[in-house]
Amino acid sequence: MSAIPQPAALEITGFDWVPDFAKGFVRDLRPRWACEEIGLPYSMRLFNAAAPRPEGYYAEQPWGQVPALVDPGCGLALFESGAILLHIGEKDERLLPRDPQARATAISWLFAAYNSVEPLIFEYSNIEIFAAGEQWAELRRPSLIEFMSRRLNRLAVAIDGRDWLAGRFSVADIAMATVLRNIEGSGLLEERPVLMAYLERAIARPAFKAALAAQLADFKPAPAAAA
Amino acid sequence: MSAIPQPAALEITGFDWVPDFAKGFVRDLRPRWACEEIGLPYSMRLFNAAAPRPEGYYAEQPWGQVPALVDPGCGLALFESGAILLHIGEKDERLLPRDPQARATAISWLFAAYNSVEPLIFEYSNIEIFAAGEQWAELRRPSLIEFMSRRLNRLAVAIDGRDWLAGRFSVADIAMATVLRNIEGSGLLEERPVLMAYLERAIARPAFKAALAAQLADFKPAPAAAA
Repeated sequence: MSAIPQPAALEITGFDWVPDFAKGFVRDLRPRWACEEIGLPYSMRLFNAAAPRPEGYYAEQPWGQVPALVDPGCGLALFESGAILLHIGEKDERLLPRDPQARATAISWLFAAYNSVEPLIFEYSNIEIFAAGEQWAELRRPSLIEFMSRRLNRLAVAIDGRDWLAGRFSVADIAMATVLRNIEGSGLLEERPVLMAYLERAIARPAFKAALAAQLADFKPAPAAAA
Repeated sequence: MSAIPQPAALEITGFDWVPDFAKGFVRDLRPRWACEEIGLPYSMRLFNAAAPRPEGYYAEQPWGQVPALVDPGCGLALFESGAILLHIGEKDERLLPRDPQARATAISWLFAAYNSVEPLIFEYSNIEIFAAGEQWAELRRPSLIEFMSRRLNRLAVAIDGRDWLAGRFSVADIAMATVLRNIEGSGLLEERPVLMAYLERAIARPAFKAALAAQLADFKPAPAAAA
């Protein structure tokens, strides 16, 4: 964590252990990145992903996932990384434009990342990682790739000619870039230079690099025993 | 449409023809329902789902889907039903509480419906409808049902003891109820009385009934030829 702790630092939940394939891809990366963009201090409350979450945590995050957020400055608690990105975005126009149409466009793309792109990447990751080698995953792959290809083609059309989804950088780009990063190396981005350039532009930002380094630094080398 | 047309009526895109299984389930139902809750006038711009969308529509809605929104009162255009629900919600505390924590909770649940519940229902609908009878769909079903069951159990815990996700009715309930409605009759809700009661409470609202009737009334009896 690169930010200097202050009394009103945001508290974000994350993991101190995950399997190797998940390192650098856990979704607390999204609010970390948003905080790094605007120099907002945050601290982490970490769980071991291999251990059951404390039962009380489900009242904060109904699925037991990360991130959840506590914002002591305004006394609010939120869950779901999309809601957290929107909340942090409201603090600074560098994350959410104040121009009404640019703001509406950024929020539209924020939901697009979460509901129109990431669900396909959930299924793809399931096929490639969690269900790798299973017969259904092999049989499903062609139709999923075809559907993803059509959607990614439309995304490339939408991004072509602009740097960021809402014209200026916004939380929508944090969401979309962290979604797309999950399929880097699959060929699906590499075949679409507009999308690859967009992702490279996003992850070249110092705030992304700082957030990624901070997440990676929080992982312990081996799973700790669950309490 | 039950609302009285006025100059500042919202313009929502929808379909005037869809296959029978989709009738009453197209996602313009969500903003229609929100408008009906607060008596906000709206008009529909309708496409034939079986025909290609006019190419210019992709600039409004990057995937060519519905709904997209034009709000002439503030001169804004949005897409993605989640973003549209949030936009309409900002107009009236009956859709989005003004209390800061209740608002944060409603927005958290809005994203939860779109990113933590609906993606499972997308995959389930694919298996049950679009890929019905395919070998991969049959092989995939057990593990998907198991995953959905665990998530729905957690949702039932979260809803148990309250009427609505954020305490009071909000756009989060419009999103979650329209998501859950897609698996009505599957047994997945029927086995969880808390969820079934929640859905029944939602769809008993006069505004839901008015929105559903309005969507159904807009469908033509047979597909029109594509332009």
